[in-house]
Amino acid sequence: MKAEIIAVGTELLLGQIVNTNAQFLSKELAAIGVDVYFQTVVGDNANRMKQAIETARSRADIVIFSGGIGPTQDDITKDVLAELLGLNLLMDQRSLDQIEKMFTKRGTVMTENNKRQATIIEGASPLLNETGLALGNAISHEGTHFIILPGPPKELKPMFTNQVLPWLYQHVLAGEMPIYSKMLKFAGIGESMLEDKLKDLITSQTDPTIAPYASEGEVTVRISTKAQSEREAMVKLNELELLIQQRLPEHMYASHDIPIEHVIVEMMADREQTLAAAESCTGGLLMALLTSIPGSGTMLRGGFVCYSNEMKEKLLNVPHHYLEGEDAPGAVSPEVAKVLAEQAQMITDSDYGLSITGVAGPGYSERKEVGLVYIGIAERDKETEVHELKLSGNRETIRIRSAKTILYRLWRRLVENEKLH
Amino acid sequence: MKAEIIAVGTELLLGQIVNTNAQFLSKELAAIGVDVYFQTVVGDNANRMKQAIETARSRADIVIFSGGIGPTQDDITKDVLAELLGLNLLMDQRSLDQIEKMFTKRGTVMTENNKRQATIIEGASPLLNETGLALGNAISHEGTHFIILPGPPKELKPMFTNQVLPWLYQHVLAGEMPIYSKMLKFAGIGESMLEDKLKDLITSQTDPTIAPYASEGEVTVRISTKAQSEREAMVKLNELELLIQQRLPEHMYASHDIPIEHVIVEMMADREQTLAAAESCTGGLLMALLTSIPGSGTMLRGGFVCYSNEMKEKLLNVPHHYLEGEDAPGAVSPEVAKVLAEQAQMITDSDYGLSITGVAGPGYSERKEVGLVYIGIAERDKETEVHELKLSGNRETIRIRSAKTILYRLWRRLVENEKLH
Repeated sequence: MKAEIIAVGTELLLGQIVNTNAQFLSKELAAIGVDVYFQTVVGDNANRMKQAIETARSRADIVIFSGGIGPTQDDITKDVLAELLGLNLLMDQRSLDQIEKMFTKRGTVMTENNKRQATIIEGASPLLNETGLALGNAISHEGTHFIILPGPPKELKPMFTNQVLPWLYQHVLAGEMPIYSKMLKFAGIGESMLEDKLKDLITSQTDPTIAPYASEGEVTVRISTKAQSEREAMVKLNELELLIQQRLPEHMYASHDIPIEHVIVEMMADREQTLAAAESCTGGLLMALLTSIPGSGTMLRGGFVCYSNEMKEKLLNVPHHYLEGEDAPGAVSPEVAKVLAEQAQMITDSDYGLSITGVAGPGYSERKEVGLVYIGIAERDKETEVHELKLSGNRETIRIRSAKTILYRLWRRLVENEKLH
Repeated sequence: MKAEIIAVGTELLLGQIVNTNAQFLSKELAAIGVDVYFQTVVGDNANRMKQAIETARSRADIVIFSGGIGPTQDDITKDVLAELLGLNLLMDQRSLDQIEKMFTKRGTVMTENNKRQATIIEGASPLLNETGLALGNAISHEGTHFIILPGPPKELKPMFTNQVLPWLYQHVLAGEMPIYSKMLKFAGIGESMLEDKLKDLITSQTDPTIAPYASEGEVTVRISTKAQSEREAMVKLNELELLIQQRLPEHMYASHDIPIEHVIVEMMADREQTLAAAESCTGGLLMALLTSIPGSGTMLRGGFVCYSNEMKEKLLNVPHHYLEGEDAPGAVSPEVAKVLAEQAQMITDSDYGLSITGVAGPGYSERKEVGLVYIGIAERDKETEVHELKLSGNRETIRIRSAKTILYRLWRRLVENEKLH
């Protein structure tokens, strides 16, 4: 079963708003096993809208419109579709009564143009609007199923969930198998390296399917299958997940869609462990990531931003001769990363102390190149680990990759420590 | 001049990501007077991509692709377009060298599939990627101008601004009267309030045009005009800017598109002033915003994240009886905001000290409601100011609005102090 989404609205073509409706509808359709091969955006223009409808009906079974059914003159979606199908546009009396009642309640007068929102194409099922005034329409015509929804997401979403889904299952999808998915999450590995490691699986596998995609510092792999029941699907998905996990045990940190900082906050909260950080070039970004997760308050005891050498000395007791002098290793050095991590741990009396010191650019410092970063992980009564990173990208990229890399290293260490117990 | 945008990517059709590239490109094209009549999304599938290209070239002068030029097997945008145009796909040596160098620098091995990112269609202009590896392409062929851009927004945006715009002006828009714009930036005011204050100007004005749009904690107003020369445009734009600035003198902080933290870093660097912060509920976000600006190293001396009460006492000397006990004002109180700001200033010996303490949610703390936040600004030898905020939204929204509000208040204070000198 194939669907196509046509979002209507000049405001989309001018870039004034982003097309979140297409995302919502695509995700919902994927979840019930309906393939979306095209999304289109067209303005409030009858000729171009007809073009888009003709193209869509030639290649899809279901055509879903969002937008263009409000009260103003440029809201013409229903008019255009009715004309194209050679059907009349009627007035839905129940919907009209509802609109009139709403205006009476507000104590305002209903203007004539508001009646346009109650129109229905001859033979269509009305889709009631729980959170607005414009009536949706659903109609099957010569083998194509057309669904017209309002543009505002807060009207479109409940209408889709509460009215369109039942209509689809009754009229279109009777007997179809639904799709189930799982999202596997990886860190410490790039998208292309990950794909390389899973290459044979990705090419040979047809059910479940495997699809990797990357975001900053993380890679997600979606595995999906069609099945009669959730139970049947989970057997297949869990089997494949295990296979993938065995290939990349040091990188797969979750089997649902959460960032690595979320996993760390959960792990540490479970064990009642605490953490502190001292950040130089990331300037608070690492701690901002951790504290974006609800519940981080109990594990992140506190931390330091120590941009200047003076603050590294004053707040974190870095020896002066590490920072200045002819033979000093300098602020961007493994020595300083080590002291920062250990001091962050000790001063706050936390279980772990993290540190980041590096050159985020633009422009080098201490004659060290942009992208050179040292990260440190200290642990109470244990050896401190320090890693050298050579990162590429601009200032923002280097900062986020530094933070994501230390989170990855910390996760590895927490997993290792778990094994020891 | 008509353009059409084709976003390529199965992840868009599955609703895993939202098509922000189409919005960005549409907005940028509108700003230079190019009409966008259609946006299309198509998956990583050669046949369907060809269909979309054929349709687009039949009705548009410029076709812009985003996505499908990464290293993996399903990245086929360049391959498909080359085949459709009957042109060869070559290797761009300079771009290949750059990719190899990057892998050497990282100390990792370049896998074979990464070479795909350096391909170029025979006769196309290479569009260099400043923030990633995949090379963009621009080619004029039989009256249609094709532009291929990478999918990740952080790669697409600089490539469009720095490479595509000059290419378009040289090859496509030569002779057109260019559009000139200015971006006016506002803080401490919402979009609807701002629109209300400028209502008469927005409705009466046809040249220059005025378009406001909002992002988290800031409002941007774009004023645009077509003109023969930059000089002629600037006369008109500056006149309107002055008019707008006189309406909202306490809110307009810049006349080009920079965030308020950028203005603050520049102002303080100019005056050789320094700053420190103590963050509770924002957990480093305020300092991360400031340190995202190059050059912030000289003004942001350092700072503290003091999530727990214990750290507020230990690192920032908040009196114990402020935090605990029956009559204690508690961590989320004007009293604690004041001490945190003053201590941050004093401990680091900075000119200014900032503090944020509040309930970001989900779930209240100290029986105080979610969204209650206190911010403090201390200044050497001056009275400390404390403000109470009642913010709505989710955890992330409350955190970012808290940080943006204190930046706005600091900017106001810096401006006032400037006047006194």
